Amino acid sequence: MSAIPEAFLKKTAQVSEEITQPFANSKKIYVEGSRPDIRVPMREISQAITQTDNGAEENPPITVYDTSGPYTDPSVNIDLLKGMPDVRTTWIEERHDTELLNGPTSEFGQQRQSDPELANLRFEHIRTPRRAKAGKNVSQMYYAKQGIITPEMEYVAIRENCRLQELRQDPRYSKLLKQHPGQSWGANLPDEVTPEFVRNEIASGRAIIPANINHPELEPMIIGRNFRVKINTNIGNSAVTSSIEEEVEKMVWSARWGGDTLMDLSTGKNIHETREWILRNAPVPIGTVPIYQALEKVDGKAEDLTWEIFRDTLIEQAEQGVDYFTIHAGVLLRYVPLTANRLTGIVSRGGSIMAKWCLSHHKENFLYTHFEDICEIMKAYDVSFSLGDGLRPGCLADANDAAQFGELETLGELTKLAWQHDVQVMIEGPGHVPLQKVKENMDKELEDCFEAPFYTLGPLVTDIAPGYDHITSGIGAANIGWYGTAMLCYVTPKEHLGLPNKEDVRVGIITYKIAAHAADLAKGFPGVQLRDNALSKARFEFRWEDQFNLGFDPERAREYHDETMPKEAHKVAHFCSMCGPNFCSMKITQDVREFAAKQGLSEQEALSKGLEEKSIEFKSRGAEIYQKA
Amino acid sequence: MSAIPEAFLKKTAQVSEEITQPFANSKKIYVEGSRPDIRVPMREISQAITQTDNGAEENPPITVYDTSGPYTDPSVNIDLLKGMPDVRTTWIEERHDTELLNGPTSEFGQQRQSDPELANLRFEHIRTPRRAKAGKNVSQMYYAKQGIITPEMEYVAIRENCRLQELRQDPRYSKLLKQHPGQSWGANLPDEVTPEFVRNEIASGRAIIPANINHPELEPMIIGRNFRVKINTNIGNSAVTSSIEEEVEKMVWSARWGGDTLMDLSTGKNIHETREWILRNAPVPIGTVPIYQALEKVDGKAEDLTWEIFRDTLIEQAEQGVDYFTIHAGVLLRYVPLTANRLTGIVSRGGSIMAKWCLSHHKENFLYTHFEDICEIMKAYDVSFSLGDGLRPGCLADANDAAQFGELETLGELTKLAWQHDVQVMIEGPGHVPLQKVKENMDKELEDCFEAPFYTLGPLVTDIAPGYDHITSGIGAANIGWYGTAMLCYVTPKEHLGLPNKEDVRVGIITYKIAAHAADLAKGFPGVQLRDNALSKARFEFRWEDQFNLGFDPERAREYHDETMPKEAHKVAHFCSMCGPNFCSMKITQDVREFAAKQGLSEQEALSKGLEEKSIEFKSRGAEIYQKA
Repeated sequence: MSAIPEAFLKKTAQVSEEITQPFANSKKIYVEGSRPDIRVPMREISQAITQTDNGAEENPPITVYDTSGPYTDPSVNIDLLKGMPDVRTTWIEERHDTELLNGPTSEFGQQRQSDPELANLRFEHIRTPRRAKAGKNVSQMYYAKQGIITPEMEYVAIRENCRLQELRQDPRYSKLLKQHPGQSWGANLPDEVTPEFVRNEIASGRAIIPANINHPELEPMIIGRNFRVKINTNIGNSAVTSSIEEEVEKMVWSARWGGDTLMDLSTGKNIHETREWILRNAPVPIGTVPIYQALEKVDGKAEDLTWEIFRDTLIEQAEQGVDYFTIHAGVLLRYVPLTANRLTGIVSRGGSIMAKWCLSHHKENFLYTHFEDICEIMKAYDVSFSLGDGLRPGCLADANDAAQFGELETLGELTKLAWQHDVQVMIEGPGHVPLQKVKENMDKELEDCFEAPFYTLGPLVTDIAPGYDHITSGIGAANIGWYGTAMLCYVTPKEHLGLPNKEDVRVGIITYKIAAHAADLAKGFPGVQLRDNALSKARFEFRWEDQFNLGFDPERAREYHDETMPKEAHKVAHFCSMCGPNFCSMKITQDVREFAAKQGLSEQEALSKGLEEKSIEFKSRGAEIYQKA
Repeated sequence: MSAIPEAFLKKTAQVSEEITQPFANSKKIYVEGSRPDIRVPMREISQAITQTDNGAEENPPITVYDTSGPYTDPSVNIDLLKGMPDVRTTWIEERHDTELLNGPTSEFGQQRQSDPELANLRFEHIRTPRRAKAGKNVSQMYYAKQGIITPEMEYVAIRENCRLQELRQDPRYSKLLKQHPGQSWGANLPDEVTPEFVRNEIASGRAIIPANINHPELEPMIIGRNFRVKINTNIGNSAVTSSIEEEVEKMVWSARWGGDTLMDLSTGKNIHETREWILRNAPVPIGTVPIYQALEKVDGKAEDLTWEIFRDTLIEQAEQGVDYFTIHAGVLLRYVPLTANRLTGIVSRGGSIMAKWCLSHHKENFLYTHFEDICEIMKAYDVSFSLGDGLRPGCLADANDAAQFGELETLGELTKLAWQHDVQVMIEGPGHVPLQKVKENMDKELEDCFEAPFYTLGPLVTDIAPGYDHITSGIGAANIGWYGTAMLCYVTPKEHLGLPNKEDVRVGIITYKIAAHAADLAKGFPGVQLRDNALSKARFEFRWEDQFNLGFDPERAREYHDETMPKEAHKVAHFCSMCGPNFCSMKITQDVREFAAKQGLSEQEALSKGLEEKSIEFKSRGAEIYQKA
């Protein structure tokens, strides 16, 4: 039956070893919800003790948000050929509003299923697709508006909290939980994320849980500006390069390093089969741009696209389990000429395809004219809209212009329409924007699109650093995340130049984890400074392993450290390589601090009593103040 | 006489080849000032023509600010053993306020000069040191206050302009010079930098030209928030690793990639000799932290430091030609206890040394009590102050606290004092600061320190990404640069982990060039968007080589492109590897645009006349719209 090429089996088996190994000193934990099948995964990082003059001081474990899925749980038997465990089918079935179909209902899906030549590419355990019963709406927004708290909503509430309420009761964390007040720009961050808070945010359209009923492997997550800022990664083969194995590998790799969602932007052959492999193994929501595949179906001729072909593609992908669709329904005929005098015209692939279609036919964009038909499909599977910014600027010069903002207003109009159908919506944003123009994008989106979650690509704050656009865009991303963007689409070092390899994906993700975390800190999301504080304490106390392990990329940190100081003994060295033992300010200040603390020295005391007596004591200890490791 | 080890000779010769090669399609040009010996170096990047249906369109050359010094001028014979050409001695001598000394006047300088064992390390062509005549002040600030425009001031004015006035007269640049208005936060950016504007900024203390009279090889540059944002790089050996050759190599490397100034933070053996090699070959201002060397002189025992040893060190270094000194004179006794309850105490090396000295002696910091004595030395050589932030925060938790801001107020007090002596001053700043607290740092510095230029290390906006702190800090740097910081001290990927190698230096520099440029754009410095626009146009027109060459790191961009598309033919490919030929939005939109432009299509026309007729034409051309390369 299964005819997976041997090379693929071998390759994936190899990959499994590398990607299933938990990070050092980390273990997968699950926080149980109101019922035993709500088990929310988190990662707990244990720490070494600190040796002080008063004996050993415990450093409590740090719990962090975990996107890596079952892959980092040693108790799960990972088999890419079978797919990941089912998380949500019980919840979906309990709602009694869906039915199993007799195989795919899309023409294309049926065609691919029955093509014997594809047997050697096909995923073996394809799920029977499910759809809403006639007249039913199965979107999380629909439930939320009905006042129903779904297991998915409870799941994301627990996930966002990352055990904060528990840690607040534990005196070991009291100092580590201190945090600067945020500047939230009008966001309404909860002190504790409750399921009811989640429900209300989804009902209002301020947040979405992208979770297709045909993607039960999904570990639910939420996108909204009153929650943690998320990051999206992109993978995808093209006509030029890449294969199924590589794409599945990149997906797992992406989840490992912290990607919250993933878009499959494949444009080459076998898009359908690649997507099946990805979905069945993906613990994160998967998004696509259906127009790419529709274009393949008409041999790359944009003018030959039709609503019927597009519609069939939507159904095909919805029944596979895609969680959100990028739909470029805002590229209206009247906006296209506004791009004529731009420096770089239209740079969105989907946008340019639709612009070409509009000009060729002199008709309004069929995604716009059929928008309610699209909503009907979306709500039958709970696919979320990611309303595409087909006219986003491709360079600083074109930022914030009439074409871009015209489209944004149309996206707002479509948001209202989608919400009438209770379909979840997020709005895509730029792109290339100079730093001083970033906030205007956020403010305008909130106003024009009624606070639907914003999902931006960067933005890049300069155009002159090809090879470093993860950084040019990471700067913009941190800022726009702070201002209120709910999800940041990553950019890799290869942007504008080539296809990212695994290392590029890793660097792009870490850059965006930094941007998202900087934004969470800046907004003041509760508890997010804990990890910074714990790592800083480890750094100060020369607990090198803890410093590595608490970081976003423990392996890279260890590798860099070992380049200069390779010996195992250096892992416990009370100095670092930048300065050497005699110049270590951490070491010196630690002595200063210990001394001051021991004397119960407060600022007032210091000023009133003076330090004379203490200076004598300090000096008497000082002779051997550098205790070389 | 000279006994440079053969290994050194060989090594530097090798390096020369790599570092003297100009970037592809770049040539060194010089803009002459009011006299022939004011020759301001710039780099001109030539571009290919664009082939259009109407024939060839010229793309004019782009002039960029150039820090690389004589190394990238093929007409200069580079010999590290002899040092770089003299730029400034005539200017200095013409002022008739200095005199040549009979060798070093510092005890330590004399000692090193006469030690025969150092012959094999010593730079061969040491310059005779120069000092102000008795009673004279030779600082740029002194001249500025007297209403004198020095050649150095004219030089930096020309340099900041980068030929903008000339380009504005040239119609080839008219579209490329379009720029978004900046948000300058109260900075006063000139439309054109005149020598008089420079003089006024220096007289007011808002800007400095760090230019020791003993560093005539220096190509003058200016640091102030009404000019381009600058970046500083750090190098330095330590007791643990590194050698003279490596440090000289890193200095040249730093200048090549865009470092505006460089701090030699060496703490190992032969600091004096290393510094001589660096200075004689450095086209950029060199800064040091003299307390590091002073500490070496007392065998690493902070409590044994004395004013006399420190004073001798200042003179030693001033006579070698160091352009700015980091002086931690704001670490007052009363502030030290304020750090006791910090999460990471004192993390500045200089700060912790002085804190230790203060506590050991129960005396006020001798850098503070002798501050006016220090000013007397500085003004005799025109060494600028970089007032050190010895109490800067070492983690987010400690940001913006009483210790940090207490010290900042003291730095303001000292700034006033230095200005009474007409000594130039900049103020060092943090460090680790969450994004929402960055602006407070800038605002407080401007107020407390009377608008003296701010010079910050990052700041890092999160603590949890060791291995990626060039990025965590690049985010903070772009923001604080936008708010008004005049110079950004770079951070490499090895920060907190190890000593940077050449590749780390390069990545750190490019990251900071991005941050500084993003800040220039955001503030609205005139003309700075030209390079972005030119590169974007090249990108849009698939001029791959121009896209590489206009970027900050042409070599990396080319390398990344070639990884996916190695063939020479791909350099002229009308598509890129991310999407393949049929999915290229640039290609599609280019067709759309050409079509629209050819029809003289304006928005109004499009709306009134409709697009029907045009759509027919478009379609008739459209059959072959993808012209595969």
